[in-house]
Amino acid sequence: MSQQLKVLFIGDIVGSPGLSLLETLLPSIISKHNADFVIANAENSHEGMGINEEIIRSLYKLGVHVITGGNHSFAKWKIYPYMKTDPNLLRPLNYPKGAHGFGYGIYDIPGTSQKIGVVNLQGRTYMQTIDDPFRTADWVLEKVKEQTNIIFIDFHAEATAEKMAFGWYVDGRASVMAGTHTHIPTADARILPKGMGYITDVGMTGPYHSVIGMDKETAIKRFLIQTPHKYKMANGDNRICGLVTEIDTETGQCSSIEPVTFPGFETKASS
Amino acid sequence: MSQQLKVLFIGDIVGSPGLSLLETLLPSIISKHNADFVIANAENSHEGMGINEEIIRSLYKLGVHVITGGNHSFAKWKIYPYMKTDPNLLRPLNYPKGAHGFGYGIYDIPGTSQKIGVVNLQGRTYMQTIDDPFRTADWVLEKVKEQTNIIFIDFHAEATAEKMAFGWYVDGRASVMAGTHTHIPTADARILPKGMGYITDVGMTGPYHSVIGMDKETAIKRFLIQTPHKYKMANGDNRICGLVTEIDTETGQCSSIEPVTFPGFETKASS
Amino acid sequence: MSQQLKVLFIGDIVGSPGLSLLETLLPSIISKHNADFVIANAENSHEGMGINEEIIRSLYKLGVHVITGGNHSFAKWKIYPYMKTDPNLLRPLNYPKGAHGFGYGIYDIPGTSQKIGVVNLQGRTYMQTIDDPFRTADWVLEKVKEQTNIIFIDFHAEATAEKMAFGWYVDGRASVMAGTHTHIPTADARILPKGMGYITDVGMTGPYHSVIGMDKETAIKRFLIQTPHKYKMANGDNRICGLVTEIDTETGQCSSIEPVTFPGFETKASS
Amino acid sequence: MSQQLKVLFIGDIVGSPGLSLLETLLPSIISKHNADFVIANAENSHEGMGINEEIIRSLYKLGVHVITGGNHSFAKWKIYPYMKTDPNLLRPLNYPKGAHGFGYGIYDIPGTSQKIGVVNLQGRTYMQTIDDPFRTADWVLEKVKEQTNIIFIDFHAEATAEKMAFGWYVDGRASVMAGTHTHIPTADARILPKGMGYITDVGMTGPYHSVIGMDKETAIKRFLIQTPHKYKMANGDNRICGLVTEIDTETGQCSSIEPVTFPGFETKASS
Ligand SMILES: [Fe+2]
Ligand SMILES: [Fe+2]
Ligand SMILES: [Fe+2]
Ligand SMILES: [Fe+2]
Ligand SMILES: [Fe+2]
Ligand SMILES: [Fe+2]
Ligand SMILES: [Fe+2]
Ligand SMILES: [Fe+2]
Repeated sequence: MSQQLKVLFIGDIVGSPGLSLLETLLPSIISKHNADFVIANAENSHEGMGINEEIIRSLYKLGVHVITGGNHSFAKWKIYPYMKTDPNLLRPLNYPKGAHGFGYGIYDIPGTSQKIGVVNLQGRTYMQTIDDPFRTADWVLEKVKEQTNIIFIDFHAEATAEKMAFGWYVDGRASVMAGTHTHIPTADARILPKGMGYITDVGMTGPYHSVIGMDKETAIKRFLIQTPHKYKMANGDNRICGLVTEIDTETGQCSSIEPVTFPGFETKASS
Repeated sequence: MSQQLKVLFIGDIVGSPGLSLLETLLPSIISKHNADFVIANAENSHEGMGINEEIIRSLYKLGVHVITGGNHSFAKWKIYPYMKTDPNLLRPLNYPKGAHGFGYGIYDIPGTSQKIGVVNLQGRTYMQTIDDPFRTADWVLEKVKEQTNIIFIDFHAEATAEKMAFGWYVDGRASVMAGTHTHIPTADARILPKGMGYITDVGMTGPYHSVIGMDKETAIKRFLIQTPHKYKMANGDNRICGLVTEIDTETGQCSSIEPVTFPGFETKASS
Repeated sequence: MSQQLKVLFIGDIVGSPGLSLLETLLPSIISKHNADFVIANAENSHEGMGINEEIIRSLYKLGVHVITGGNHSFAKWKIYPYMKTDPNLLRPLNYPKGAHGFGYGIYDIPGTSQKIGVVNLQGRTYMQTIDDPFRTADWVLEKVKEQTNIIFIDFHAEATAEKMAFGWYVDGRASVMAGTHTHIPTADARILPKGMGYITDVGMTGPYHSVIGMDKETAIKRFLIQTPHKYKMANGDNRICGLVTEIDTETGQCSSIEPVTFPGFETKASS
Repeated sequence: MSQQLKVLFIGDIVGSPGLSLLETLLPSIISKHNADFVIANAENSHEGMGINEEIIRSLYKLGVHVITGGNHSFAKWKIYPYMKTDPNLLRPLNYPKGAHGFGYGIYDIPGTSQKIGVVNLQGRTYMQTIDDPFRTADWVLEKVKEQTNIIFIDFHAEATAEKMAFGWYVDGRASVMAGTHTHIPTADARILPKGMGYITDVGMTGPYHSVIGMDKETAIKRFLIQTPHKYKMANGDNRICGLVTEIDTETGQCSSIEPVTFPGFETKASS
């Protein structure tokens, strides 16, 4: 008999505003959705850039099973030695040979006899010229398939065209592809024709009174003057953005995909 | 007494799939929402790139009052002479002197004594190095304000950071800023603290069985092989993406912002 | 006893102005320098973009042994079938699988018992996100070395940093690395410490009364207005830019590297 | 009777290797060429990025009259207050309002009754999206012309197409346009038809045993692994790259343009 597995994914956690909110709310979100497995992108968790061991430990304690990353995974050099030791901490697999850390893993799903493959990949349009994510996907999906057909991909990319093209490319070969990196949630969560759950971007978990997590005055100055201005974390209007997906354990297909935004955005003027 | 003005905005219309859908549905959407004014971005309406006179006329006939554009407004050279003659056809205002056409206008709202200013601007991150949209906004908002405080901005840009920074920059000075260009709707429609309705991207009106409107096999080939492959329009899974906003005619502030997606995306596996 | 082999390289040939000049002058340049082998980059030979069979034949007739290319090698689709049939016509080797044509070859040097390996690679900074040219070089240099230690690389790239880094990377493993693509000759021809002849860019063979081969009024308009303006070939101030190198056949090292510019640039006001 | 004015220009000074070499050689180069006026680009003089007051003072002591800059002029924040106080220290004029410092100046030429205008501008292709250098040139050349027709432009830009287009655009309106930024000297110094001396890039004054001034192992790692690696200055094979130009004081036209490279590059294998 087919079972439904629930995977919760948390979008790019930005700094302590993002972390604090998770400390307060993540356990209840997990139990509310009966999530079997929790994945979180934390490339911006350490003061907006990179990650550290303390944060990693506290995310595990909150119920996160696997941490994914992106272009900022390498921002803080102190974490490099640790990256080689923790298979549950991922950075994009298609960084070239020589980059620290792991790019995918196959994990036991607690309380079940199932395994889930988690794959972290990164796009190249307007980003680093790393290895081809499409062909890397061919290789890794084949490899993971040997052990499980439940496969979750965090595709960290900037351009909507690259994300959508990648989604079509892996539809039928993965259970879910969730986009990250732009820090703005998209409204296009859907199930593609061959059964893969898809969303262009999950959005950020952090302060929305900001420019993608950065202090807005600093960000505006950068655009206005085009000279360097020190990065400053924002705070305020903190929000969790994530994704709840159900995966059929027999087929590996996605049966339901639903964004989580908490608290919701204000769409009416307060009167 | 304060009145609520309803403005409907239609996101980037892509080719004949987008146009056909509007022909069928736009009149009923307008009447369902009691829209007082209709704006549509049509930079991709002519076979995915640019626009022509026939399309312009048919959009007006369907109830569109003002047509906005973007980087593709200049894709088809035949329209250049016409662009100088139609003040209801806009392209981004911050293209440098010498570019054809108009970048903003002030229009009578039918059936009311009100005027609305519509401003089209374009970002520069990962795009053409045109004039600064921030400072151009300073100039144009001042100018429009002399005649009306109901101001709608179509900000055509790629990077979420630039769109969000721009949103904060004009909050309190415009009624609504709707982002366009990425062809994917975002889920962050909200009212900013000083009263401006904001959304990062409205999304495309066109075929979603595609890579942002383009045939998906062609798009995938471009990513895989990195050589030129002729642009081919997609078709299938056609969808209207837009935005319904209410503007308080007294304050010029946005009182309600609500995305329109029709038909909705499939988020459950069909069984 | 060690012999010196003379290799003449001709920089990016741009359109009929470049071709006409070669028809007049190439045979005498070859004989003046006693060139044993002639290589020419012809990615812009067909009206400024791409190449065709007629041009290929006429270059061979003029004494060119191997034709290299770059990002514009794929500009004219008609040449694709031919690219699979002619091993003396190269395009950058590090285009991904699926791209037409050959990226390197090993050729007999006429009148000698020697062989020369010619390798065409392309950079990625500000260019297409193709495969890594550094690691592709590792593979191809190893392979060519099995047959000859006389190796000429045309590295087609935009950024000086990438070209210089690549030069250091292959120094000691190739005889000569000649940069192409920017269409402006550099003044840094030199022999690197491990014996490889190096130049950042050979410059273009074509009309210098232009903007890198394009009509200058059109090019200026593109910068001023940032809208599309049809590409127009320039003509006037035609010039051959190339490189004469001597390679020690025993060691495979470069013993002499000398740019060829004909006619020279005017550096004094005519009075 | 017309006089010839000699202007010496020194290309991007990189770190202490560049500065040391100038301390040893600049005075003799100045006297050898009888230079009337000396301009130096020093955007990379402080450890490869930015500049400080000590360096500025020592350059003036060595005979430099005006210091120009580029995108790295703003790299070290400590210099910002000073930038407002020294009219002989320039940064690109077309940085937007709000950027510190001056972008052009008109200076007495010592020992003559002549004045020279020095203008610093920056390109935008693959660089910061600052104000249009072409239109800024229109404005500033008009303004300087009121006081002198001897005008020297340092155009700091990446793309050869933008540099060449800009050169044609100002030919007839300036005496000399010298390109900077790529750190590689070009071999195309010439006098354009309307009398302006032009060179695409003067090249760097610093360590050529490097990747444009940076330690080559670090630079190669950045290309290979695409992760951050701390910038490290190079040292070795230090070289001055500059330009000696003669300007007719009556017409403001360039009568002679000659690159200076010292010591020259090794073009023959040492035996
Ligand atoms: Fe992020
Ligand atoms: Fe990221
Ligand atoms: Fe569009
Ligand atoms: Fe667009
Ligand atoms: Fe070329
Ligand atoms: Fe090229
Ligand atoms: Fe520099
Ligand atoms: Fe620079």
